[in-house]
Amino acid sequence: MKNYLIHDEWKIIEEGFHPQYNKISESIFSLGNGRKGGRGNFEEKYSGQTLQGNYIAGVYYPDKTRVGWWKNGYPEYFAKVLNAANWIGINVKVDGEELDLAHMIIESFQRVLNMKEGTLSRSFVASFKSGKQLKVTSLRFLSIVTPEVGAIRYTVQPLNFSGKIKVTPFVDFDVINEDSNYDEKFWVGEYLENLGNEGYLTAHTKKTKFLVCSGMKYNVLLDGKEHAVHIENESREKYIESSFTLDLKQKQEITLFKYGVNTSSEYFNKSRLAYESKEILNEAFETGFEALLGEHKETWARKWETSDIKIKGDVAAQQGIRFNIFQLNQTYTGDDERLNIGPKGFTGEKYGGSTYWDTEAYCFPFYLATAPQKVAKNLLVYRYKHLEKAIENAQKLGFTGGAALYPMVTINGEECHNEWEITFEEIHRNGAIAYAIHDYIRHTGDKDYLAEYGFEVLLAMSRFWSQRVNWSAQKKQFVLLGVTGPNEYENNVNNNFHTSNMAVWTLKYTLEAIDFLKKNHTERYAALCKKASFDEANETSRWKEIVENMYLPWDEERQIYLQQDGFLDKDLTPASEINPAERPISQHWSWDRILRSPYIKQADTLQSLFWFEERYETEFIARHFDFYEPLTVHESSLSSCVHTVLAAKIGRPEKAYEMYLRTSRLDLDDYNNDTEDGLHITSMGGTWMAVVMGFGGMRVSGGKLTFNPILPDGWTGYSFMIRFRGALLKVNVNKDNVEVINESPIKVEVLLNGKEI
Amino acid sequence: MKNYLIHDEWKIIEEGFHPQYNKISESIFSLGNGRKGGRGNFEEKYSGQTLQGNYIAGVYYPDKTRVGWWKNGYPEYFAKVLNAANWIGINVKVDGEELDLAHMIIESFQRVLNMKEGTLSRSFVASFKSGKQLKVTSLRFLSIVTPEVGAIRYTVQPLNFSGKIKVTPFVDFDVINEDSNYDEKFWVGEYLENLGNEGYLTAHTKKTKFLVCSGMKYNVLLDGKEHAVHIENESREKYIESSFTLDLKQKQEITLFKYGVNTSSEYFNKSRLAYESKEILNEAFETGFEALLGEHKETWARKWETSDIKIKGDVAAQQGIRFNIFQLNQTYTGDDERLNIGPKGFTGEKYGGSTYWDTEAYCFPFYLATAPQKVAKNLLVYRYKHLEKAIENAQKLGFTGGAALYPMVTINGEECHNEWEITFEEIHRNGAIAYAIHDYIRHTGDKDYLAEYGFEVLLAMSRFWSQRVNWSAQKKQFVLLGVTGPNEYENNVNNNFHTSNMAVWTLKYTLEAIDFLKKNHTERYAALCKKASFDEANETSRWKEIVENMYLPWDEERQIYLQQDGFLDKDLTPASEINPAERPISQHWSWDRILRSPYIKQADTLQSLFWFEERYETEFIARHFDFYEPLTVHESSLSSCVHTVLAAKIGRPEKAYEMYLRTSRLDLDDYNNDTEDGLHITSMGGTWMAVVMGFGGMRVSGGKLTFNPILPDGWTGYSFMIRFRGALLKVNVNKDNVEVINESPIKVEVLLNGKEI
Repeated sequence: MKNYLIHDEWKIIEEGFHPQYNKISESIFSLGNGRKGGRGNFEEKYSGQTLQGNYIAGVYYPDKTRVGWWKNGYPEYFAKVLNAANWIGINVKVDGEELDLAHMIIESFQRVLNMKEGTLSRSFVASFKSGKQLKVTSLRFLSIVTPEVGAIRYTVQPLNFSGKIKVTPFVDFDVINEDSNYDEKFWVGEYLENLGNEGYLTAHTKKTKFLVCSGMKYNVLLDGKEHAVHIENESREKYIESSFTLDLKQKQEITLFKYGVNTSSEYFNKSRLAYESKEILNEAFETGFEALLGEHKETWARKWETSDIKIKGDVAAQQGIRFNIFQLNQTYTGDDERLNIGPKGFTGEKYGGSTYWDTEAYCFPFYLATAPQKVAKNLLVYRYKHLEKAIENAQKLGFTGGAALYPMVTINGEECHNEWEITFEEIHRNGAIAYAIHDYIRHTGDKDYLAEYGFEVLLAMSRFWSQRVNWSAQKKQFVLLGVTGPNEYENNVNNNFHTSNMAVWTLKYTLEAIDFLKKNHTERYAALCKKASFDEANETSRWKEIVENMYLPWDEERQIYLQQDGFLDKDLTPASEINPAERPISQHWSWDRILRSPYIKQADTLQSLFWFEERYETEFIARHFDFYEPLTVHESSLSSCVHTVLAAKIGRPEKAYEMYLRTSRLDLDDYNNDTEDGLHITSMGGTWMAVVMGFGGMRVSGGKLTFNPILPDGWTGYSFMIRFRGALLKVNVNKDNVEVINESPIKVEVLLNGKEI
Repeated sequence: MKNYLIHDEWKIIEEGFHPQYNKISESIFSLGNGRKGGRGNFEEKYSGQTLQGNYIAGVYYPDKTRVGWWKNGYPEYFAKVLNAANWIGINVKVDGEELDLAHMIIESFQRVLNMKEGTLSRSFVASFKSGKQLKVTSLRFLSIVTPEVGAIRYTVQPLNFSGKIKVTPFVDFDVINEDSNYDEKFWVGEYLENLGNEGYLTAHTKKTKFLVCSGMKYNVLLDGKEHAVHIENESREKYIESSFTLDLKQKQEITLFKYGVNTSSEYFNKSRLAYESKEILNEAFETGFEALLGEHKETWARKWETSDIKIKGDVAAQQGIRFNIFQLNQTYTGDDERLNIGPKGFTGEKYGGSTYWDTEAYCFPFYLATAPQKVAKNLLVYRYKHLEKAIENAQKLGFTGGAALYPMVTINGEECHNEWEITFEEIHRNGAIAYAIHDYIRHTGDKDYLAEYGFEVLLAMSRFWSQRVNWSAQKKQFVLLGVTGPNEYENNVNNNFHTSNMAVWTLKYTLEAIDFLKKNHTERYAALCKKASFDEANETSRWKEIVENMYLPWDEERQIYLQQDGFLDKDLTPASEINPAERPISQHWSWDRILRSPYIKQADTLQSLFWFEERYETEFIARHFDFYEPLTVHESSLSSCVHTVLAAKIGRPEKAYEMYLRTSRLDLDDYNNDTEDGLHITSMGGTWMAVVMGFGGMRVSGGKLTFNPILPDGWTGYSFMIRFRGALLKVNVNKDNVEVINESPIKVEVLLNGKEI
């Protein structure tokens, strides 16, 4: 746990340079605009601890899998989002001495992420060995309006000397992924142009052949006035620079405006990529820094209008929740259904930048309730477009007849993960994808989505479940053998309640979808059945049998669902009795000890109770919570949100708040010692859920939006915004009263604490 | 399945060269003498498919582990037996044309492994592009008398021309392991001597710093008479050659006698290694080829006297069983307790040349019954010497107080394997090691072994079991969670019968050992207790509780032990109904499908019934056999032997013979398409068991040797030799009668078909 950042409602502030935490800061100060992003790296050279990272959405490389012992069905590749050109680079030399904060005395250092405006600024005074002091200030943003464009204002001022200052803006495409399996470079240089204040590099990725162009153009002000400089261009493979040198008098000030462009063949014709990049960059250059920044701020302001959460009386909590919302909005803007949300977004390389079930389970509710409807819809369409690959994936495992198993980890729809207990067995992910369809329709009322895309996905997944279960002659019920639930501290178990429950629910929901389509989209339904060779009578009759005869492990004595068969054979000593020096157990215990233990990594049985709470009495949920939560070690960042929501639901506000605190500032305080790898983007959706669904008690039920708010002790009030069926609602929770304000002319049905308002 | 080798009682014969099978032949024609061994490679250059392999016992390298996803507790290294110097090399050029069978017309090719005499010979006529025909014959052996020495007689004769023949004997130490994880070379050259007809290379291994010296010396005969040649020496790093050229007339014959030496710092002082090697080599050189070969044949004859099995009426079966016995005797001679039996012996690199539980479970009975007592004892002492490491290994997994978990795979006592479901969970291996102690004492009567070495090992393993079980409040019994049984087609199951059974038996056997030691070795016992800080009263009282209250899964309806909890939830369709095109399932089914299936890779529950058959009625065993065998796919070469023995026991001679056929010629017929990787050395012990314990019905019980022989239909008779408590017995089984002949003056108690004789 670190505590070096200053608490502020709208800003993340590092006062004084903390080189020992620089990789953490680089993650935290990341910028993104949904199409590209990069870590909070310095513009100038830094020879200390750093991970230089710039990432372009959708551009990946299938890196050959590294595995100890091969198992049939493993994927051959792990698709990685690629570290792309460093376009922010500006090196500075003063009379031959290089500006490099790793080797200088630094004063007045400040690094600020302005979340309201979407900018990263920095200022400091650095002393060279010669004693010369240079003041530097910079401001950087990635336009949320024109996502190909980024811009930097970079000012240097000699404080106590006059001298020659050499400034070298550059673009470096000779980069490598830190997590490359075979230390291979993935980029092949194609084209290079470098003339005066403008230059471009084009490179393609090996194997996948994505083409990416990164360019820069700049102008220079001396003491605030446009200043012509003599430029020297230098180039080598995958690298261009364009430097100038000025004789500066003490206190004179150079300001460099560097504009960057990053385009990819995902959005532009390959043959026109360099040309289009030039067009875009020159337009940005003409528009100018202030105008670009102005429209950027305005767009961010509009995003905040519909997605902000205000917390009164707790600046740390306010900063924490805004940081999460800001990063979610930087990562995914929802205008391209080919994109999704990687666990680290654009802030690092770990987990390959791929899509996990995290998206549907923990991020989807945020976008559903705060962004235009198409944003959440595009997340569903992303999976729809991968349906063919999910069917192929199931075929590789021996399933037939159009059964689909979505991958555990993917970029392009193909499975990337290769631990058998996860890849082949953590199949509840299929359930999360079905649940997101249900969640979308419940929230938006867009039931026709079933006809458009949803049914095909549900059908293929129901076919999967129907083959994945088998009849147990012993139990005289259907069983689901060899699965791994959300609690990955159990592997290859039989009859995991959550997985079996999701299987049954998916079958039921698909049967309901069929009824709806038959009535409301008769022709479309017939066409879809034909397309999928769906033998309705036979296939649904087996589904119904399974729905009616599925085994769900249940303990009669405790009246609870069991996480899996045999769970009660474990030594059920509560997690609170584990020696604190041995926490987290994932870092201290051998894997077999963890597996034999009863300890739960993240909500498993409780995940189902959270998703289907309407089915159960509060007391029933509380009984399960009281059994499972004491055994839960919350060693996944995705654990606490579900527990917050449930604790709030069953009337345990202190427990809810305790759980909430574990994730609200997970990255800002580097709670798990791993923020340097990148931010926990997908768990940020969970934190939003914790506030809105936990404390706010928001649910959608029967076409109505309901709230049952509670106010955590440390807060004096909070408010949040919800989009619901065209309306925009503001919920204000204070000590004495709760208001729900409809800020739009569209009427919707809302229940507050069970009463219609 | 291949069928290119000629059936013969004492020889393996390849008639005509089969380049497509050359790597298979190289495995089959391997030579070894317990201290070193090598594949049946050609002496001269061969540019076709080949794995040049020479291995020196005990000389290994810890290769850095390659793993996809790290788990706590994994070992960092995989120790590999190293491919060492190629000392057999003899290159031949005829008027500048190189002898290389990959590019020539070959006639009259014959490669013969003489199992009776322990020699490999080869002869052929090869035509060069020029049309010149050269006749080559060679004979090679690795002395079983002086294990550092090997010798080659290599004869060339121009058949239809006169010309210059250049012969280049060489030693090449610049070799690499085919299975090197990072394509690294493991040998560092140290010292090189190359003068005239004699040369030496010394190299050490990285990390482990084993020092190995390989040398050669030769003399030349022309038409049978010693001939002085003009020698040219050439050397480079890790390579020496010593060539001569002769003008040969048509039909003249050169014979080269090349003597090789291979020594290691395991047996010689490093500082004297080169000197000692020279002494040994020169002594062999002086002794001469024929004399060395003579004593070598004699010693092999003596080995056969006590270990041969004769089968009448079935040449293929006779060849198969002798091949297995021959390879077992080539691999392990039992005079060094630091050595053990790798799954491939000296015939290939797969599985790293390490020790598995195969040794105790499948090889031990062979050496116990056919070799001097110290041979089997040394296999036990090998484990005793690794006890410290086994305790460390258990500590890494969280066990305390001197508990030992022997590694799954090892050379020096450290664990090398890194699949969690095997490394951490396939713990029944501890049981096999305990059982071997019991087996040894039962066979030899050497109960004092407990005082000498056995008890310390048993104590440490009992401590392991006592911590590894936990109390199930649900079952009110002790359970054993998260294990993998011998059937590796099930992973991480609860309460595997075999594992739990071995745990309970080990505890009981250790308790018996304590009683014996207290009575018979009072002082030694006290000393051992002190050494191990053994709190007898407390520790044994827990053991007794476990013995009395251990849960073993049992099906009341079928009256059988269940392989594991939940086994009856599976779809129990017999293996005979699997589509033959999908066999072996390990090559056709995804891993999750295999895990969910009921199919059994090798004897699991039946392994326990085999080991403890005295406890059970024949009918009880038959009931289990009839339940489990139809679900068994026998996809491990270690499966059939146990099934042969049990089938014979329960009176199913046809089934016994069907099972036997699966392994008797496993490598000779390349049954599993993997003989090219090396021979299945450890499963060869199983084949011996199948004949002697299966058809011969041999058991040891109550200090008596018992036989209940049956005669397979295709055989007219068979006989085998058994060493038992100093005596040497010959068992002759014919259609009409069975004889047991004591070929020694020592009296032992023998039962034949239940009657004393």
